This record gives sequence, C-alpha cells and structure tokens, in this order.
Amino acid sequence: MEKINFTMLTDFYELTMANGYLKNGFKDKIAYFDMFFRKVPDGGGFAIMAGVEQLIEYLENLKFDDKDIEYLRSKNIFCEEFLEYLRDFKFSCDVWAVPEGTPIFPNEPVVTVRGPVIQAQFIETMVLLTINHQSLIATKANRIVRAAQGRGVMEFGTRRAQGYEGAIYGARAAYIGGCIGTACAIADRDFEIPALGTMAHSWIQMFPSELDAFRAYAEAYPDNCTLLVDTYNVLKSGVPNAIKVFNEVIVPKGFRPKGIRIDSGDITYLSKEARKMLDEAGFPDCKIVASNSLDEYIIRDILIQGAKVDLFGVGERLITSKSEPVFGGVYKLVAIEEDGKIIPKIKISENVAKITNPGFKELWRLFDRKTGKAIADVLTIRDEVIDDSKPYEIFDPEHTWKRKTVTDFYAKRLQVKIFDKGACVYKSPKLKEIRDYCSEQIDNLWDEVKRFENPHVYYVDLSTDLWEMKQQLLKRYSVK
Amino acid sequence: MEKINFTMLTDFYELTMANGYLKNGFKDKIAYFDMFFRKVPDGGGFAIMAGVEQLIEYLENLKFDDKDIEYLRSKNIFCEEFLEYLRDFKFSCDVWAVPEGTPIFPNEPVVTVRGPVIQAQFIETMVLLTINHQSLIATKANRIVRAAQGRGVMEFGTRRAQGYEGAIYGARAAYIGGCIGTACAIADRDFEIPALGTMAHSWIQMFPSELDAFRAYAEAYPDNCTLLVDTYNVLKSGVPNAIKVFNEVIVPKGFRPKGIRIDSGDITYLSKEARKMLDEAGFPDCKIVASNSLDEYIIRDILIQGAKVDLFGVGERLITSKSEPVFGGVYKLVAIEEDGKIIPKIKISENVAKITNPGFKELWRLFDRKTGKAIADVLTIRDEVIDDSKPYEIFDPEHTWKRKTVTDFYAKRLQVKIFDKGACVYKSPKLKEIRDYCSEQIDNLWDEVKRFENPHVYYVDLSTDLWEMKQQLLKRYSVK
Repeated sequence: MEKINFTMLTDFYELTMANGYLKNGFKDKIAYFDMFFRKVPDGGGFAIMAGVEQLIEYLENLKFDDKDIEYLRSKNIFCEEFLEYLRDFKFSCDVWAVPEGTPIFPNEPVVTVRGPVIQAQFIETMVLLTINHQSLIATKANRIVRAAQGRGVMEFGTRRAQGYEGAIYGARAAYIGGCIGTACAIADRDFEIPALGTMAHSWIQMFPSELDAFRAYAEAYPDNCTLLVDTYNVLKSGVPNAIKVFNEVIVPKGFRPKGIRIDSGDITYLSKEARKMLDEAGFPDCKIVASNSLDEYIIRDILIQGAKVDLFGVGERLITSKSEPVFGGVYKLVAIEEDGKIIPKIKISENVAKITNPGFKELWRLFDRKTGKAIADVLTIRDEVIDDSKPYEIFDPEHTWKRKTVTDFYAKRLQVKIFDKGACVYKSPKLKEIRDYCSEQIDNLWDEVKRFENPHVYYVDLSTDLWEMKQQLLKRYSVK
Repeated sequence: MEKINFTMLTDFYELTMANGYLKNGFKDKIAYFDMFFRKVPDGGGFAIMAGVEQLIEYLENLKFDDKDIEYLRSKNIFCEEFLEYLRDFKFSCDVWAVPEGTPIFPNEPVVTVRGPVIQAQFIETMVLLTINHQSLIATKANRIVRAAQGRGVMEFGTRRAQGYEGAIYGARAAYIGGCIGTACAIADRDFEIPALGTMAHSWIQMFPSELDAFRAYAEAYPDNCTLLVDTYNVLKSGVPNAIKVFNEVIVPKGFRPKGIRIDSGDITYLSKEARKMLDEAGFPDCKIVASNSLDEYIIRDILIQGAKVDLFGVGERLITSKSEPVFGGVYKLVAIEEDGKIIPKIKISENVAKITNPGFKELWRLFDRKTGKAIADVLTIRDEVIDDSKPYEIFDPEHTWKRKTVTDFYAKRLQVKIFDKGACVYKSPKLKEIRDYCSEQIDNLWDEVKRFENPHVYYVDLSTDLWEMKQQLLKRYSVK
C-alpha cells in the first residue's frame, strides 16, 4: 500500500511539550518511556501483541515537511528554534518491543523507548494508536477463533470498520489472531491474507429467480461455488435450489460444490436442517458457512446446540471488537538519565491500580521445562539476570506473602530491540510466520488462562530489587 | 492530507459478482442501490449524516492500476475480458446523498446510487465503510455535546482510535457533531479543526517537583497556560501549586491563567473544591477542564451533581463510540431498469424489520411552518411530489390505522445529487459550515426526539403509492 506521512498524526500536546522541553534546555535530556496496558479486553486472560511492523514504518518515516512547519508556525506558540529543530529532526531513540503475535499481560512494558525526551515523548500518540488498535483486534479475533474450535473463521467486517485503516490493519490483526482469511481485497493484495467471498443478496435479486441466479453463478464459478441461500427462504427455496444447481451444473462439469452460506435466521436450526438436506442429496462434502452478527459467545452457544457450521464469517463484532472496542494502552515516563545514571520515575495516583512500575526494566517469561507452559512473567531492573539454572522465587507484588518457588524452568527475555539510536535493527517476520508463532505461543498458555470469563490471572511479578525500588519511590513521592 | 487510492479497499465478493455480471451480459444493466441503516446507535432518536466529502474523494479517484490487475489475475478466477473492463474502468453512476450534518433516521435512503450494476454494486463496501464510520462518530459526539449543555467538548481520543483514519476522520466527524476542537494535530492542519492540548503527566515528572514543572510551563506559555493538577494530589498539591505559579509567573507578566485540568479521581468533588480554591485565590476566570473516561452519561451525572467543569476532554468513548461502536448501514438493491423502465426490487427476510423499501425513491422532510420543527419524513416514489400547499395525510407503514393529517407545513427533499453520470456535481461545504448546519438542523428536532433513552420515535412514513407498491412486491415474492 502507498504510505502516508503520519508524522503530524499526534496529540497537539506532544508538540507544546516538545517546544517547552527545548526552551528549558532539555534538548539532549534522555528519558525512558514504557507502553503497557492495564486490563485485558472482554475480561480475557491475555491479549495479543500486534502492530509492530506499522510502528516501525511510522518511525522510519518520521519527518516534518515544510507544510507541517508552516502549519505549526501559524499557531503562533512555537519558537523559531523549535521549528528549526523539527526541520532537522532525525529520530535517534532506542526502541524495544515485544514481537507481534506474543501473548501479553497487564502492566508489562510491551514497548520501551529510550532517547531524547523531545523525541521519546513525541512518538507517544502513534505508538499507542498503532499498538492499541491492532492488539485489540488480534486479541478479539483470537477469542472468536478459539470459540470456533478448529473451524475456520473469516474476517468479514470491512464495511463496518472504523475508517479505512481500521479495515485494512484490522484484517491484518485478525489474521495474526488466527482468522483464515478476510473479505477485504486490499488486505490480500498487500498482506497476502487470503481474500474470500462469493455473492451478496443483490446478486440473487438481479436475476428473475433465485434458481436463475444460482445457475448463473455456478456457470461462472463451477470450481469454487458457494451459494447464498437465505434471500427468500433458506429451507423452502435456497437449499433446494442450491442442490438442484449443484446437480445440474457443478457435478456434470466434474466439480464438487464448495458450500452454501446462511446469513440470517436461526443458524443452529437452519444449519442442522440444511446439513441433512445436503447429505441426503449426496453432498456431505458441501460446507456450510454462517455469518450475521456472530462473535465468540454466539459461536460457542450455537456449537453447544449442535449447529452444523463448517466456517464462520464474522463481521462488525470482530473488526470493531464490539463488546469492548478500546485497548487501553498507555505510555508513561519510567526513568530519566542524569550524568549518565538512570534515575527511575514513578507516577503516583489516588487509584492504586494506576501507579506505574518505575525504571528501565527487562520483561521475562518463565517456561516450565517439562510441559513447555508459561509459568509467570517477571519484570526486573534492566541489568538484572534471571538465572534459570537455579530455583527462582516469585511473589505477588501486592500480597507479598503469596510466594512460589519455580524450578526446572527456562527464562526468556520478551522484548527485542527494533531501533538502535534511530536506526531500525529488526526485520518483521512474514505475516504467516507471525500467525504461526502466535498460535504456538498460545498453546503454551494453560487452559485456565484462556477461559473467556473469569480466567486465571497469569502472574506478572516484580523481582525483589525492582519491588524494593518501587516501594522507595512510593514513600518518597506520596503526598502527605 | 496525501490521498491513497482505495479502489481495492473492497469486499472480494464485489469483484466476483462484477466478473459474474459481465459474463452474464449485464455490463450495461442499470441498477439502483440505497444505503440506509436500521437502528440509531445507543438507542438514540436520530443519527447524523457524515462522510460525504470522503465518499466523493473515493469516487473521484476510482481507478484500477496495473498492480491491482496483476493481483486479480493471480487469483485465477477472473476472465481477461473483466480485467480489461477494470483497466478501462470509468465511473459513470448517478449518486445522491443526504448532506453531511443532517439528522437522519432508520430506513431512509441516505445514499442512492444509479448506474451499471457492476459499478453500482462495486462501490458498496466503501460507501458503507465511509458513511458508517463518520456517521457513527458524529452521532456519538453530538450526544456528548448535548450532555455538556453548552460547555465545550474537545475530542481527545487519537491514541485509542481504531487505526489512523479512525483518528483523523473521527476528529472530523466529532467536529461536525459539535465538538469545539481536537487533540489531533493533523486534523487541525488538514481540516482546520482547532487543535488543543497542553501537557501530559510526564511533563510534571521530568522536573524535580510539580512546582518546578508548572513554573517551566508557565514561563513557556504565559498567555495560554493550562496546568495538569492531578499528578500527585489534586487538592493538596496540584491546585495550590497552580495558584502559586499563576501568582508568581502569569499575573506579573500581565496575563490571566487559562485553566487547570483534572484527569483522574472524582471529578465532581475535585472540581467543586478546586473551584472554591481558585475563586478564593482571585481566579474565578480560570477554567476547569475535566478528562478521563467521560461520555454522555457520566457528563450528565456529574453536572446533575453540581460538578464545576467548564470544558470536557473526551477520548476513547467518543472516538470509538465505545458503548455502541458499529453504525449498521446497509446497501441494498432497490430497482433495476428493463427497456428504460424502472422495476422495483425488494429483499424479503424472515426478520420483518429487515425487509427493504423497494424502488427509486425520494426522501422528504416535512417542517411545521409555525415552529420550524421537523414533523415527519416521508419516502415517495421518485417522481411523486408532495404538494405542501394542501394538507397531507401521513400514516404508519406497519400500523396503517395510525394516521395524521399535516397542515401548514413545507416539504423539503433531503437528498442532493453528488454525481451525474460519474462526474462530481456537488461541492462539499466547509467543515465549519457543516457543523453550523448540523446544529441548526438539530434545533429543528423536538426535544422528545433528542432524549438519550427511550426517545420519541420520529415518523419515517411511506407515501400511499410507495406503500402499495411494497405490498404488491411482498405478495409476489413471499415463499409459500
């Protein structure tokens, strides 16, 4: 896809702050920011990281052009020195991110940025916008895919997405989350996400009768014929006409029918009846596709009721994550450097859940060597090392008496460096590889973490050193 | 903003159908499609039309380039004649739309397209994606703006939007719906939506103390100084420090402080206490800005409780329309032409609410001449004229015994032609004009229609001729 320069897609306060930092002599002041989120959407047990590739594209293309400078000058609040700074802007931060497709949990730094505060602060809006959107949709798609228990889920939401990139990158994220394809042609062209689709009701209406419409479609696509059977009446008209056309057109040409699609009515009842009719007509291999306001809850329920659906097309409730359309990632200052020394910073809040984890940190995942399952994540101070050759004690950072000693495990750092002093040092895997990696990593989670409601809360703990640093800062900054 | 060619941002089935239409000799077959929606989001009484300007841009730039043709050829399902057709594609439809900013109601054709079925069908995805998204956000923004009862509402949601255009066109739609500005700089640069913003918590944390941070900001922006007062403790630290800096820096420079912003905690309590402190300190003109997970319900409630807030910054719940993030517009075939005659088409459904209004129609709004208020909307067959010099009887299309005779009214056609045989014949008003028009039109609605919950259902009726045509088609197509 062509690329737009989104440098100015930023909250205005990033610019007023940047100008202020420059005025205050903070041009070379080094700051550290973490992006993290506080709550998994839909009350789920984990989220899925997505959007890193687009974040990289944005950071590689950061550039203020003349039009931007002129616009900013016209606001009459920025000093000329700042506008000069923007004109010569060269991104020089270090950036680390958790790779796309990785299961992620609340309060973990999924992106960490180190660099001149003006720059590290400026990119906040796009870091959040990019990662929040795609992680939201990847997470939702994966819930729906898991509900379908191995049946294919196709992303059908383009027309109900929130804006053009909501559709395109939404399709990308849905594929990472496990969808098998999309209805969106541009997502196929640009990301090689298989595009699928057959006909709308209007196709049927364009012909004198449903039978004529089916015949015309079967003649045009004999080797790939899925017919939409609910325009008039699924069981009295749609399925009988489809069977007739399969026998009259598809079979004589030496092909097998691909499927029928039901887009309205009671999917459970209609799919069971249609399955019987297709089987009796000698088409047990003809798939039944269901669409129409589906999500993980409806799919789970109709499968419990014995619906005979082979493929689900999921639209608006996936592409907008309708039941919870916001991924609440935030971007917080966690440290500054003074004379080359890292000084941790903390954000206090009257709401205890909003207090940040200070300092330049490392994010580790501990895996059980026997089962391969993820046991816990641990945040440490950046230069700490978790020695996985010895038992390691983890503890709940709030209820510190809750302790557990982990043995026979291996510890893996989750963040990878994606920018080094402003230069990209990471190559995004192919989308298919990200999707496979995502699936593998989710296999490493316990089923208890994967429940749709009231999942087991996966441990995200702090090392003893980090916990103590946090306590000291809390004491120092709390207002009496 | 630079423009991307979104021709391929389409559901794949638009292409398979188009190829099939061509194969079936439907190249010059004329079809009519309506876009309409069935339900106002959030149970509201009306929605707001938005997105027409971007729809026009899309239609003006429809073009399949070599890359698109190559991609389609690689799918091995499209005939060469079709790929040739796409290479020479020239949009030639007539398009009518309800102007942006107009209050719209369920089952009304807000966009109508007439033209070769291949083209008129093809644009479905983008018509829906564009209008659905912006109408959703304009409608939500207007609810929030009405809840604020004259206080300014600023759109602060960029970082939580669903994709880049979700943020940018979301800001545009929010402005149409009545927001006074946005946090999004690019929306200001490109749409002249006033961008607003001051500082993040990280600004405060970058300095040795809150007081130092406030001083530095006040020195940088003495004439436009809004301070974020909730980093440590609003009433014990933030507001006292702000007052100190207003007195020490702002006033001596001959300015007045602009405001304080509260982004966490109990807005009602904190704003009342902060108001008292500011008033006692001699700053009754200093505004209080509130943000943090606001929407129309919370704003209504805190104002009932006497919160002293002058301006609201509303983020994720506006930019995603969180409580209902889907605007369910659909695009349905309503007629075809045969030998130059318009043949109405209907889509039957087992769900009665999903049955379409057939035919090429006109959408009228009847206004009371005395009050200026909108009385009802009426759909007629296209060439019918509502004579507003005489009394006009309207009736409920389902409960036809419910009748009302309207007198002393004027009737206005709501659709305007935006494309004539593929050429744009409409110039979008300036965004500010759209916003003003929207506000005026909403003033013409009865308060009963504007209730947030259980609003009066505004009449959208059919003319007698249209109603009878629909009944005939229902009889003809219903399956026994």
